[in-house]
Amino acid sequence: MPETLRRIVLASRPAAEPQPDNFRLEESAVPQPGAGEILLRTLWLSLDPYMRGRMSDAPSYAPSVQIDQVMEGRAISEVVASNVDGYAKGDLVFGNTGWQTHAVSTGRGLRKLERTSGVELPAQLGVLGMPGMTAYSGLLEIGRPKAGETVVVAAASGAVGQVVGQIARIKGARAVGIAGGADKCRFVTEELGFDACLDHRAPDLAGRLKEACPQGVDVYYENVGGKVFEAVFPLFNNFARIPVCGLIAQYNATSAPADAMPVPTLMRQVLSKRLNFRGFIVSDFAALEPDFRRDMTEWVRDGKVKHREYIVEGLENAPRGLIGLLRGENFGKTVVRVAADA
Amino acid sequence: MPETLRRIVLASRPAAEPQPDNFRLEESAVPQPGAGEILLRTLWLSLDPYMRGRMSDAPSYAPSVQIDQVMEGRAISEVVASNVDGYAKGDLVFGNTGWQTHAVSTGRGLRKLERTSGVELPAQLGVLGMPGMTAYSGLLEIGRPKAGETVVVAAASGAVGQVVGQIARIKGARAVGIAGGADKCRFVTEELGFDACLDHRAPDLAGRLKEACPQGVDVYYENVGGKVFEAVFPLFNNFARIPVCGLIAQYNATSAPADAMPVPTLMRQVLSKRLNFRGFIVSDFAALEPDFRRDMTEWVRDGKVKHREYIVEGLENAPRGLIGLLRGENFGKTVVRVAADA
Repeated sequence: MPETLRRIVLASRPAAEPQPDNFRLEESAVPQPGAGEILLRTLWLSLDPYMRGRMSDAPSYAPSVQIDQVMEGRAISEVVASNVDGYAKGDLVFGNTGWQTHAVSTGRGLRKLERTSGVELPAQLGVLGMPGMTAYSGLLEIGRPKAGETVVVAAASGAVGQVVGQIARIKGARAVGIAGGADKCRFVTEELGFDACLDHRAPDLAGRLKEACPQGVDVYYENVGGKVFEAVFPLFNNFARIPVCGLIAQYNATSAPADAMPVPTLMRQVLSKRLNFRGFIVSDFAALEPDFRRDMTEWVRDGKVKHREYIVEGLENAPRGLIGLLRGENFGKTVVRVAADA
Repeated sequence: MPETLRRIVLASRPAAEPQPDNFRLEESAVPQPGAGEILLRTLWLSLDPYMRGRMSDAPSYAPSVQIDQVMEGRAISEVVASNVDGYAKGDLVFGNTGWQTHAVSTGRGLRKLERTSGVELPAQLGVLGMPGMTAYSGLLEIGRPKAGETVVVAAASGAVGQVVGQIARIKGARAVGIAGGADKCRFVTEELGFDACLDHRAPDLAGRLKEACPQGVDVYYENVGGKVFEAVFPLFNNFARIPVCGLIAQYNATSAPADAMPVPTLMRQVLSKRLNFRGFIVSDFAALEPDFRRDMTEWVRDGKVKHREYIVEGLENAPRGLIGLLRGENFGKTVVRVAADA
């Protein structure tokens, strides 16, 4: 166990795309847990698009990270020392412990993980964690795909998208992905089993999407926004449902592009096709958590839901990992191996 | 009984705002009902914003009126002669019989009305008809106002808006209207009992709306669009519901204004506030019709829901009536007295 705690703090707020100098690596001595406290050693840190929002001071559903404060993030950790009943050295826990190698916790907000869960730990941050739950709850509660319907999901090889399409297929729907690049598209169709996947970097996305959705689009799981949304928009069937989960294409933007679709154009279609747009965040559906754990554990175990992680090596590379995630460069759910022995 | 049938046909499609010469008054002999047919004499014709859509050939949820075809419209008629069992001379019926003084029907799609309903006939086209049902179903199924919440409705003195706000109050919510002009606003608060009403023609609608909604907006019943929507938009609370019923401010527009809000701006708030936008048309909620008839009949009888009609005299003035409706000039639910003795 190193005697140094390393953490990454928010050094400054990004103007648009985050830059390495918006982050700062700091070191201090590893603290000792006091009475009623646990010392944790971080094994795996999850990197997720919502973190871009926390770097900004624009109003949102969750408070911003303050300057010089440790970056917010969920991680899997190991208990190093415990003064809390129910936690023992060697226990694995999941919690919102931030971008750092160690954390002191009272145990509140932590969830214990089984060492023998049969699924490797990074998957606990992805398909079996918050992104999987986001896919599950948004698709099933808002999207409500029916057998034979067409579900389109963008960022289809990403942490949430890869799960959305596979659940859609489990429910008997046709799953059409959109992803960045031929490799990702091949993975989405060949490994994950989507019915089709379109490369948004290739020309004429709208035209290719229309061909791939000959029956129109009944559910569009929105986690991208921008031009991808505009390509899907004309294809909506009457009564299409649009769970709005994320807008990664917009997170770095300082303003909407001059040629963005105007709201009146959208609203006309909302009315005439009776579209249902509904934003959500995963905690809105906390009541579904037991269903999610039961279903997803079974689906992963039975090979009905496959998953892929993109591993960033070392806490010091977490900023680059998040920048790459926002650029669409990462391939799979992004996780950081914080402990070299993890 | 006149021997001449008069009807108003669509002479040409409007480029933007409908003009009188988009309509043409035609005359012909009153037809005789054949075997299995009824001859109807129109008493009252309902004019409604959806008719603007039927004049256009843009794709929508319902087919367009064809050029030289009689304008579509729902009316209350009296049976003049009947060769159909169950219909007798003097019966009152409601049906989609169009902008004309007489119509021949097989009876299919007609609904019989009680002469002794206790509510004057024009109200059967408004508060107790399609506009009332539109208000009831969209507000209760999509808006779902809870006691203490704030419901904003635009076109608040119009056929739908006047009912929306009163139902909101019956459900214990605060009702804030938006209407065009001081007279309409006075009616909305003093007669209909809304908590507040703002004149959208006066300066700083956004600022006044904010003052009138100190707890934010939980439900916005959208039937206007455009600048009124943009004034309400910043006030949405988390989990606000937006039933999209109509967009009267946009119906005559050929394109969105250059300064319209861009979709990415909207979607950011959909996500961070978890807004729910859902378009509907009244027929989507046909299953609610019995509930609506029961509740609204009682509310009107007990004086809990008041109503006001704007009477256009004579079929020949129906085009002017629709043009005025789209301009916001009419005050109350627009109906045409087609039969002088109605």
